[in-house]
Order: sequence, then structure tokens, then C-alpha cells
Amino acid sequence: MTGKGNLIILSGPSGSGKSTVVFRAIEERSDICFSTSVTTRSPRAGEVHGREYFFIDQKRFDEMVANDELLEHATYVNHSYGTPRNYVEEQLENGMNVILDIEIQGARQVHEKMPEAITIFIMPPSMEELRRRLESRGTDTQETIEARIARARHEIQEADFYDYLIVNDNLDLAAKEFSAILTAAQCRFDKELAAKLVK
Amino acid sequence: MTGKGNLIILSGPSGSGKSTVVFRAIEERSDICFSTSVTTRSPRAGEVHGREYFFIDQKRFDEMVANDELLEHATYVNHSYGTPRNYVEEQLENGMNVILDIEIQGARQVHEKMPEAITIFIMPPSMEELRRRLESRGTDTQETIEARIARARHEIQEADFYDYLIVNDNLDLAAKEFSAILTAAQCRFDKELAAKLVK
Repeated sequence: MTGKGNLIILSGPSGSGKSTVVFRAIEERSDICFSTSVTTRSPRAGEVHGREYFFIDQKRFDEMVANDELLEHATYVNHSYGTPRNYVEEQLENGMNVILDIEIQGARQVHEKMPEAITIFIMPPSMEELRRRLESRGTDTQETIEARIARARHEIQEADFYDYLIVNDNLDLAAKEFSAILTAAQCRFDKELAAKLVK
Repeated sequence: MTGKGNLIILSGPSGSGKSTVVFRAIEERSDICFSTSVTTRSPRAGEVHGREYFFIDQKRFDEMVANDELLEHATYVNHSYGTPRNYVEEQLENGMNVILDIEIQGARQVHEKMPEAITIFIMPPSMEELRRRLESRGTDTQETIEARIARARHEIQEADFYDYLIVNDNLDLAAKEFSAILTAAQCRFDKELAAKLVK
């Protein structure tokens, strides 16, 4: 096990319980943090620069793209979002496993720039269960729910480049599996460490 | 997580504590077993066919080699030893993680035949510690100890095709890491499972 953390790319449909799995794992270990994104949108009430997001203007954002300072970026509803490479690398150096909660397109971008990143896809145990979870949240219209389910079906077919697939049927088990993947990643064969051991 | 177990190739110098790590992990989970080898040597007092080894004659051994029934084989001091493919595959089907405690040469053979096998190398935290452990066992001459240390130095340089490196400094931590690697292996992205989830 080396002192550095790993970059963990985490994807999965809305309703798969991604964040809940990570928060449950964080209860058991302190070497996990979420990445903080940059965004060009304005802070909402209560949002703090450097906590929810790093709030920057479009000029600075374009500069970060041009300088390859972002591991991935995308635009939603006229605002740009991205993952700052420097921030991620600092956390990794501090021994933190940095979680990137992003979609498959972003995952592909990051994976190209940091091929040593670990990719995890989280799925609910069935489409019926996904529907049940989305309905019980009560925040989406029936139309949105159908769209989310169709999207989940499509995404999993695109996801076959992911290293791991966690089926979130039981939260404790899913969190244990997530944590095990992080621990295993820290044990990947490391030539420098091997050389040190026989000095 | 699928129902099948994984083949775990485990190597490391004498004194690295390989078996102790596995036995500690077995205390916590019941889906781990050691593989049982075939051998042409005669059973010693107390050894049971199918427990310590499958005892077979040279003719049957040669037949197994010819029929590709062995995942790896080697000869020591006029006796032949090998890992029976059938036995291993049955255990894997039963959901067991099968541990092959073999040297690097055998690991290469198995890895070619079963590329999905997980390879783990276990090392003591330093050569001084390895010497201390070998000396405290009191079973080896000083000459044998020096030979074992030289061999460990050599082996780790050959071991760079292994997936994982566990430093066995603290037994509980090493067993936890070993167990995490097994759990992570069971979560590897599985296309069949992915297809089932969206049915």
C-alpha cells in the first residue's frame, strides 16, 4: 500500500444510490473525499466557494480548458462545469481517494487523461426497483421517471469500459464493496514500492 | 457481484507470511479455500488423499500434462507436482475463491491459461525483517537464510506482472487488504450481469 490516494470515477443512474453508498463508506474511513468542481454559474443562497463549487467566470473557465487544467468539462443549461486537475492531484498527494461523481462522457475524458483512475458503475438490482425508488422520491413526473429508466438502460450498455460494477441492493454490502475496491486499488503492484522493500 | 469465485495466485518469499494472511482472512469469510495439488510422491504419515494432496502415479501425471488437465506443474527432487484444472474450476463454480500458493514460474503458467486469475505478491516490510523472521523460526541454517533472502530480492524483480503487492507488516492489515482484493475481484464489471439488471 502506497501513501497516495486514487482517483475514483463513479457513475450510475439517478436512483442508484451513488452518493449514499459513498457517505456510508465515509463513516468507516477518513481517506475519501468528493472532488469539487469549477462552475460558471452564480452561487445559490448558502453555497460557499470551495465547498459546493469553485465559482469562476467564463474567461477563467476558457483559460482552464485551453491550459488543460480540467480533467473533464461539460455545459448544462448555458453554464459550464469542470473538474480541476490541480485540486484533484493535491488531494491524491495527501492520501485521499478522490471521488468524481460524473456521467459516462466525462468518465471517458478523465480516463484518457488519468488512465490509472478506477472506474465504478453503480446500478440498482433491477429496473422495477429503480422505478420504485424514483417514484417514492416523489420529485419527478412520470414522464421524467420513464426518461430516467430509458437512460439507465442505455447507459449500462455504454459502460462496459468501467472496471467495476456494484449492484446496490443492500446499502451496507454495496458500501463494503465500494470500500474494498478502494483498498484493493491502494494495493496495486507498485514497482517503486517493490524496489524499496528489497533495499 | 457474481456468484462465481475467483482464482487467486499468491506468491511471496518464505517468511512473508503468505499462509498466515490467508488463514486470518478465512476467519472472517467462508468463501476462501486453498487449491489441492496432485503429486507423484508417496503420502507421508497422516497425509490424506484429497486433503494434503491428490496422490497419483507418474503415468497418470503424464497423462494429465498431455491432456492439459493441469494449470501448472513442476518437478522438485524427482517428484512431480501440479494444479488440477478440474478441481479448481469446480470450486470456482461453487463460489469459492481458490488460493494457489505457487512460485513465479507456476504463476506465469497459470496466468497464461486463466488470464482472469488475480495475482498477489506478498512481501515482508524489509529485508531486515525477513532475516529476523527466518532466524526466529530457527529451522534454517545461516546459509539457507542468506539464500532465501537473495532469492526474495531476485523474485520481486521478476514479479512485476502481478496485479497486487501486499506488504505484510501488520497481520490484521495485510489480511484486510487480501480480503478487500477478493471482494473487489468479485465486483469486476461483468457484461452478463449488466445485461440482466436492465431486463
